[in-house]
Amino acid sequence: MDRHYLNLVQKLEEITHLNGVMSTLGWDQEVMMPAGASEARAKQIAALAGVIHECMTDPALGDCLNELKEKNSDCLGEAERCNIREALHSYELETKVPKRLVQELAELGSRGQGIWVMARQENKFSNFVPVLKQFLELKTEWAQRISPDLKPYDANIDLFERGTTMDMITPIFERLKQELIPLIEAIQNHPQQPDTSFLQGRFALDKQEALARKISQDIGFNTDRGRIDVSVHPFCGGSHPTDVRITTRYKESDFIESLYSVIHETGHALYEQGRPHELGDLPASESLTMGIHESQSLFWERMVAQSKPFCSHYFDTIRTAFPDNLQSATVDSFYRAINSCKPDFIRVEADEVTYPLHVILRYEIEKGLFGGSMQVDDLPGIWNELMQKYLGIKPPTDTLGVLQDSHWSGGAFGYFPSYTLGAMYACQFYNTLLNEQPEVEKNIAAGNFAPIKGWLNEKIHRQGRLYTSQELVQRVTGEALNPDYFIGYLKNKYSEIYALV
Amino acid sequence: MDRHYLNLVQKLEEITHLNGVMSTLGWDQEVMMPAGASEARAKQIAALAGVIHECMTDPALGDCLNELKEKNSDCLGEAERCNIREALHSYELETKVPKRLVQELAELGSRGQGIWVMARQENKFSNFVPVLKQFLELKTEWAQRISPDLKPYDANIDLFERGTTMDMITPIFERLKQELIPLIEAIQNHPQQPDTSFLQGRFALDKQEALARKISQDIGFNTDRGRIDVSVHPFCGGSHPTDVRITTRYKESDFIESLYSVIHETGHALYEQGRPHELGDLPASESLTMGIHESQSLFWERMVAQSKPFCSHYFDTIRTAFPDNLQSATVDSFYRAINSCKPDFIRVEADEVTYPLHVILRYEIEKGLFGGSMQVDDLPGIWNELMQKYLGIKPPTDTLGVLQDSHWSGGAFGYFPSYTLGAMYACQFYNTLLNEQPEVEKNIAAGNFAPIKGWLNEKIHRQGRLYTSQELVQRVTGEALNPDYFIGYLKNKYSEIYALV
Repeated sequence: MDRHYLNLVQKLEEITHLNGVMSTLGWDQEVMMPAGASEARAKQIAALAGVIHECMTDPALGDCLNELKEKNSDCLGEAERCNIREALHSYELETKVPKRLVQELAELGSRGQGIWVMARQENKFSNFVPVLKQFLELKTEWAQRISPDLKPYDANIDLFERGTTMDMITPIFERLKQELIPLIEAIQNHPQQPDTSFLQGRFALDKQEALARKISQDIGFNTDRGRIDVSVHPFCGGSHPTDVRITTRYKESDFIESLYSVIHETGHALYEQGRPHELGDLPASESLTMGIHESQSLFWERMVAQSKPFCSHYFDTIRTAFPDNLQSATVDSFYRAINSCKPDFIRVEADEVTYPLHVILRYEIEKGLFGGSMQVDDLPGIWNELMQKYLGIKPPTDTLGVLQDSHWSGGAFGYFPSYTLGAMYACQFYNTLLNEQPEVEKNIAAGNFAPIKGWLNEKIHRQGRLYTSQELVQRVTGEALNPDYFIGYLKNKYSEIYALV
Repeated sequence: MDRHYLNLVQKLEEITHLNGVMSTLGWDQEVMMPAGASEARAKQIAALAGVIHECMTDPALGDCLNELKEKNSDCLGEAERCNIREALHSYELETKVPKRLVQELAELGSRGQGIWVMARQENKFSNFVPVLKQFLELKTEWAQRISPDLKPYDANIDLFERGTTMDMITPIFERLKQELIPLIEAIQNHPQQPDTSFLQGRFALDKQEALARKISQDIGFNTDRGRIDVSVHPFCGGSHPTDVRITTRYKESDFIESLYSVIHETGHALYEQGRPHELGDLPASESLTMGIHESQSLFWERMVAQSKPFCSHYFDTIRTAFPDNLQSATVDSFYRAINSCKPDFIRVEADEVTYPLHVILRYEIEKGLFGGSMQVDDLPGIWNELMQKYLGIKPPTDTLGVLQDSHWSGGAFGYFPSYTLGAMYACQFYNTLLNEQPEVEKNIAAGNFAPIKGWLNEKIHRQGRLYTSQELVQRVTGEALNPDYFIGYLKNKYSEIYALV
């Protein structure tokens, strides 16, 4: 093997291992760390981040990559070429931005977070305006340095959804609007709404925890290589495919939230546990884009766990856990209740039909801000107008409107589209699975999830970063991202639930 | 402030922060990490250890220290001088040893651990012999490089108990043997032994956990800056004085073990939480030697928690937790039961009277091995002979004898004396406290631990590393380490418990 390549492997594995350490620190901070330790932890994280940055920008790494770039790569395999390509991409991301800009972005991100928390609490968008304006300026400069050939907003999207641009997203999102706005109106106008009353009440936390753990393990989460814990916001973290850690939160008043958040995070976790780490702790074994990751969580949360066969398999288990609450419910009423659709103000609480419109609204605003057709000062008005147009409701406060998400306070522009790209990927993957495994619904109804997990492992998880997300979707489903599957799925499902004509 | 000094502070704080990260990884590994992650974790730890080693041996740090060493230090305060002195010491420890030797020691430590585990399991000392022989060779070479002026075993002791040598330890340990061997014989020969039957039975784990947590917090453990968890072996870890984490284990058959191990670890934790970190995350704010650390755990475990006033304060609480078990017990019988003395084979299970003899035996063996008067091959015989001589019992197997401790398998020679130095320091400190706070026993009986904790904070914890352990003992107690306090304490206490004449 080429000595430059072996040298590269060593350097990249060191970076992966140190990033694994950083992930453990992050998990610990959310799940275990005593409150009084936050100042010391911030310093520890800064020290480690500095070390990782030095490794990632090490001129010796650059030299090594340059040697390899110019080599004839015929003697290298697919994974080796992927490692070189991905390492070059990361190296350029880390080295193309001047230190001054890195520091300004870091400083604004840390300050912006605090300002946003206060602005949201006090419902004062104007206090958040200067942060947003400065971020737009810095993120535009950053984009021009990183990817001078891309439009600035495309460069921001690229960070989360490599290779995906506005030109690809806009027509798809237009299609979604065209189809979903009337669907939601029809649902809203229907006189009979599902009975969800039995989902309210008191649900013992230990029963919730046992139920969520059982279902997560049934689906395939391997607790020899992972953990389930509690944190304020659910997430999937951990340091390695052999150490994947998901969290949730338990509220006595709502077991559906904890159960479905565990299933969602389990979807992320199965992706992480399924990565091909026998290729080494190297880029080729890493997960792909945010959208593909989200497709895995939504695959299990929505395509599997919000389906009728899933409800029929677990209904008795769930009713046994909460006998006082679910006495009058049936499989069918339970299925309808967990799939009720209702426009509301908050994205993270939205159902699968209204969720895309929350995302599209944010996408259009980000696009408008970077493109110059919208101004930061006008955002509250624009937000509320779009909410009215897309979901038929107007947030009574900016706290419930333009100030609700944390993303912009840290400069994460271009992230939102991933949620809906993920939802569409999930649906398209599920459609392919249905063709390849016609018995899939029977398997779900029997609690036999292994063939589904095996299919995802083989088709997606074990592909690591060998292909772009566009190539992966093509390889798995035989076509490019096609919103028809998602639209068809929603129309069929909700026409049935709401008995629409 | 001198720019070299500011430069030094920055480098030292980075090392402290990265060491804090390492401690969090260590805690996580023992308490949280899923079993399947051990291989990935080992690589993460190795990567971080490499980074820390580079920081500690950075030639720029050496240059900076040399500049400062030659400066007139009159303009620097006590803490600043301490930071320079300690940093120089660490730098020399890290740089005086050739890389080849560092690697050989690391490799042997890792291999030796596995060989020891198997040898102990199979009761085959001969399999462990080559490891011990190679360690003696390497540790002798290491000692000659680190401290050519010290005898090799003294250099090993110095790593754990800076400034303490065989010349200081041997006469003290001779004194202990002279006094404790006859005391233990008298105790053993006494016809009436304490009734410990009520300490056997089944003790619900949740009650044990609540009791241990309550008493730890009563004593002063601050859970805003720390945690209590479960691990296979109890320890005190954590990453910073604001993040101190103790662990214990709970067995249904024994609540005394978990309770007193939590009190012991709380003693370590109070030291860590009490460190003067407002001086910066720098050597001056660190804890002193292993012996001083052990003095803090034993102070609370033995001097406070094994005392009659402590038993009288908590007896009702304990009996309420375990009403079925302790119905027939009284404060007095409880006090006698937890202080029963009986020679046994295993050091870690020994009581405070027999414990020093376990330590002295190991000390004499280590001294004999490094000095050349003993040979590795003869150790099982020597061990059993000394056990017979000091404790009147002979281990039936090497598993219960010379193979019981893990220390030698990792090359930790010179560590054992710290346990008994700590016990003697604890007793001497307590004697001074009694003089300065004559109401201390009344306070313990009333559960008023704040004055005791305050005294330890002020006299010991907040002194960091400003003084050597020898200086510290002199400053706190007005005299050098004096075994009379420990001997007198044991004689008085056990003469009373066993009604010796």
